[in-house]
Amino acid sequence: MNTSSSTALDPVRLRAASTCQTLHWLAAGRIDAVSLAEHYLAAIANRNPALNAYISLRPEITRAQAADSAQRRAAGRLRGRLDGIPVAIKDNIDVAGWVTTAGLPARREQVATGDAAVVERLLGAGAVILGKTNLDEGVLGASTNNPHYGATRNPWQPDYGVGGSSGGAAAAVAAGLCVAAIGTDSLGSVRIPASHCGVFALKPTHGEISARGLVPAARRLDTIGLVARSVDDLTVLLQVLAGYDAEDPRSRKRRVALAPPDWEPGRLRCGIPHDLAGLGTTPAVLAAFDQALASLRHELGQQQTVDFSDYPLAKARRAGLLLMEAEMRQTFAQDLADTQRPLSAAFRGLLDFAAGKSASDYVAADRMLDASVLKARRLFASVDVLVLPTTPCAAARLDQAEPAEQAQFTAFASLSGCPAVTIPMGRTVEGLPLGLQFVGPPGSDLRLLELAEVCAAALDATPDYPAGAI
Amino acid sequence: MNTSSSTALDPVRLRAASTCQTLHWLAAGRIDAVSLAEHYLAAIANRNPALNAYISLRPEITRAQAADSAQRRAAGRLRGRLDGIPVAIKDNIDVAGWVTTAGLPARREQVATGDAAVVERLLGAGAVILGKTNLDEGVLGASTNNPHYGATRNPWQPDYGVGGSSGGAAAAVAAGLCVAAIGTDSLGSVRIPASHCGVFALKPTHGEISARGLVPAARRLDTIGLVARSVDDLTVLLQVLAGYDAEDPRSRKRRVALAPPDWEPGRLRCGIPHDLAGLGTTPAVLAAFDQALASLRHELGQQQTVDFSDYPLAKARRAGLLLMEAEMRQTFAQDLADTQRPLSAAFRGLLDFAAGKSASDYVAADRMLDASVLKARRLFASVDVLVLPTTPCAAARLDQAEPAEQAQFTAFASLSGCPAVTIPMGRTVEGLPLGLQFVGPPGSDLRLLELAEVCAAALDATPDYPAGAI
Repeated sequence: MNTSSSTALDPVRLRAASTCQTLHWLAAGRIDAVSLAEHYLAAIANRNPALNAYISLRPEITRAQAADSAQRRAAGRLRGRLDGIPVAIKDNIDVAGWVTTAGLPARREQVATGDAAVVERLLGAGAVILGKTNLDEGVLGASTNNPHYGATRNPWQPDYGVGGSSGGAAAAVAAGLCVAAIGTDSLGSVRIPASHCGVFALKPTHGEISARGLVPAARRLDTIGLVARSVDDLTVLLQVLAGYDAEDPRSRKRRVALAPPDWEPGRLRCGIPHDLAGLGTTPAVLAAFDQALASLRHELGQQQTVDFSDYPLAKARRAGLLLMEAEMRQTFAQDLADTQRPLSAAFRGLLDFAAGKSASDYVAADRMLDASVLKARRLFASVDVLVLPTTPCAAARLDQAEPAEQAQFTAFASLSGCPAVTIPMGRTVEGLPLGLQFVGPPGSDLRLLELAEVCAAALDATPDYPAGAI
Repeated sequence: MNTSSSTALDPVRLRAASTCQTLHWLAAGRIDAVSLAEHYLAAIANRNPALNAYISLRPEITRAQAADSAQRRAAGRLRGRLDGIPVAIKDNIDVAGWVTTAGLPARREQVATGDAAVVERLLGAGAVILGKTNLDEGVLGASTNNPHYGATRNPWQPDYGVGGSSGGAAAAVAAGLCVAAIGTDSLGSVRIPASHCGVFALKPTHGEISARGLVPAARRLDTIGLVARSVDDLTVLLQVLAGYDAEDPRSRKRRVALAPPDWEPGRLRCGIPHDLAGLGTTPAVLAAFDQALASLRHELGQQQTVDFSDYPLAKARRAGLLLMEAEMRQTFAQDLADTQRPLSAAFRGLLDFAAGKSASDYVAADRMLDASVLKARRLFASVDVLVLPTTPCAAARLDQAEPAEQAQFTAFASLSGCPAVTIPMGRTVEGLPLGLQFVGPPGSDLRLLELAEVCAAALDATPDYPAGAI
């Protein structure tokens, strides 16, 4: 590697690099935070009009933060571990001085007065904010085809969608429009788009990263989700962002070990769901999954089949959805009443569905979450990790609806409060990426990440960008 | 003390004794488990027809358990820490082979097939079960004036009630009809009747004692509650009964230290709510509370006023009640449909009120619990313990309604998941006992108990039974 600071880095190589690689370059003086931010701002100006990953940009703020970071580094007084790293924030997370739309029309001018806890931590670690990313209307959906802010296009195949609801975040990472992105995940909202875009994502153990400053979708499910270009990046982000927050009632004292545990593949008990085809997995995903399992024969230790016949996957997912819809009627009460800037008929229909449900129906749905916790405890008594496809099918064409069943394999970790990681797992014949998902018991986040890293290396999962994607 | 095993213990002294004292007598051979059980069964036969503390008795089972315990002790093979101790169980907790009525008419013949987790632990520790105790209809209420199973009378003043819903448990302990009792507490259901009956009770940190096998009232609030004749007894019971249960989705890994921490009254920061009169406290309770505070000037360290003006005590309590009513419509769906053995009009009215509430109303109420968690975190950042009366007024006459505001001071610990202890605090001019309550942050159960023990000793709070009460 050429370590001379005078040699300019190739722009594509720069924007395809991981957070860790970028930090090395910053530390080695190969690039400074200002040039780095300018590279990304230029790429956004060039590519975002087509992709629509970002729906809010404030280049003057980005430049000021980058300049501060560059000054800190020049003075030898770094603020934190992410100093100078340009990140994107999903637009349901408050950043002081920026609008938080939550994908809703009535919030176009609703400027946040404070930073979300996760943003406080990012800025406290020296990160630079590039912009706010697109999401489904009201954060409810898995398409990022937003009737008010437009659809986000898939960087690999522009006629296809990206999944959702953190679709802008995943597309921005995939297309090299940021180094990493902060999304949210209540039933699969970072894992699904990360899978569809061929990047890496983590949904941490519930309560591990503070949800303060996040527009609530369903408090028992809501987690901050992380999207990045490598598993190592997810690990660094988790370590910077996790921690107890007394002002988040769902935050818990740290349960995730700071250092990854030792990992012995020989002793790993790895559970694979029985009859994935019967659970709605498409042949393309099944084929990619079988190939991945075969390639990971050594890494995944003792593979065994686990049974989900005693757990109603689809019913549990729908219960989670009802909790979200019911909570959103509280969260978005003013938006519902705004006749000047009305919600779409489709979104209103979902909230109206919840309006027809009683408090007792809510309890029945909430009990399904308790059942999910028990299912996870029983499952993780017999296996260390659950391995399954992230989604049952690839991204849908933009002119077709993303199927509701897209969250079939991600919802379980959300409903049970467990951590889950997705890594790229090959591509379909159409060139659409697929994802491989790892789920572990609460608190096993770093253990999962270590396994995912081993598997990603074995699969050579680092995305190989198509011409023009970056 | 006469330690000769041939000297019979005075029956009143025997039945007024604490669990710890009784265990000493059993260990010293002053009495055996069979004689002990017979003493209690005889007292129950004598006093229960008037008090109606028990609604289900199975003397043949009690005698068999006592005989087993006596044999174990004779053979030097004790099963556990409570071997031979006769206890009572509230009738919303499953005991295999016994009916669980939950105070409902349609469940008169509903025999439990398994033990609740707390009963497994009790039996595993060698305890002897005397019977199941009376409670409010459907566990909803604070009077133990059950339209199907009758009212429980106050052992101190038979024209008065005992509060509820664990009224039978508290009356049984107060009247010397068991050594200790297991109740439940979702908004104050062990603390209120313990206060009204002049005995000691603990509502532990939520999730600390498994709620498996308990008829669910509101899962986010439901805790097993302990009623006993001394603080030391509560400590022993907690140590036997607490612990992680993988089969209870709300159970958490142990957070309560097994050994009590060092206690330094000089450094204690003790919070007293501002303007208790304005919060609905009666003059009699205010006078007793002020006298208790004066007596505990040394024990309570640095007393300071804490402000509840930013927290809607009554609204939060009503929110908790809505969660209970909504959940009960699920739990008691079959009972509601049973026209042969109908629910009372009053109870049906409470469930119908919940039926008129939407899923979104439930979310609004559930958010009040999040607000309670935050209030507790802020409060316990500035004080170590909150000290307040257990109830705003004494027990009501049986021919008058127990006011709904009776849970005004107990609900906060339930809504915030905090532990709380009540100890006797003098009596009104009518001779009705009052309670002094200690609330601490989650996990501080043993610290609270140690403070309560110090204060109980200073107040000389051990009940001095009225003639005929035992």
